[in-house]
Amino acid sequence: MIDKTIRINYLYDFYQSLLTGKQNNYMRMYYLDDWSLGEIADHFQVSRQAVYDNIRRTEALLEEYEEKLSLFERYQERSGLMKKLRSLIEDGKDREDILRVLQKVENLE
Amino acid sequence: MIDKTIRINYLYDFYQSLLTGKQNNYMRMYYLDDWSLGEIADHFQVSRQAVYDNIRRTEALLEEYEEKLSLFERYQERSGLMKKLRSLIEDGKDREDILRVLQKVENLE
Repeated sequence: MIDKTIRINYLYDFYQSLLTGKQNNYMRMYYLDDWSLGEIADHFQVSRQAVYDNIRRTEALLEEYEEKLSLFERYQERSGLMKKLRSLIEDGKDREDILRVLQKVENLE
Repeated sequence: MIDKTIRINYLYDFYQSLLTGKQNNYMRMYYLDDWSLGEIADHFQVSRQAVYDNIRRTEALLEEYEEKLSLFERYQERSGLMKKLRSLIEDGKDREDILRVLQKVENLE
C-alpha cells in the first residue's frame, strides 16, 4: 500500500477535472502547495473545520471516482508492463517475448 | 469524424460507471439492445418524450465527461501507436525505430 498522501496526489491528478473550483482550490493548496489547514482557513475566511471537512469529503470523492473508473490502477498496471517492454526491447530480447508483453498491454485497453 | 452512434457507444463504454441506474437502463436498451424510444417508454410506462429527453441529456453528459477526462481521445491515440509498435516489432525493424514509438506511447501517460 502506497503512502496516503502520494495516493491522493495521484488520484487528484487523474480526477481533478471532475471537481468543483472550491474543491480544487483547497486540494491544490493543501496537497500541492503544502499550506496548513489554518492557513487555508485564514485565506478564505472560513473555519479550519470547514476546510478540513471539505478536503476529507473531496478525498472520499476521489476514491469513489477511482472505484468507478480505476484510472490510477490501470495506469499502474500499464506503466509496469511498459517498463518491462522497454527493457526487453533495449536488451534485444526475442521477438516472441516482446510480443507477449505487448499483448498484455493491448489487453489492458 | 466518426459516426455519432459509434462515438456514443464508445463514450458509454468509458463512462457508464458514472451514470445513474436509470440513465444506464435507457442507454443500454437504446444503444446496445436496439430498442426504439416507444418500446422503452412502454416498458417503463413513461412518455416517449421523457425517454428521448433522458437519452439526449445522458449523451450530453457523456460528452461533458469526455471533455474533462478525454479517455476516448487518449484511447484512440494510444491504440494507433500500439498498432504501429506491433507492426514494427513483427516486421523486425531497428530497435531505434521501435524505441521511438515506444517513447511516444510512454509520453501519453
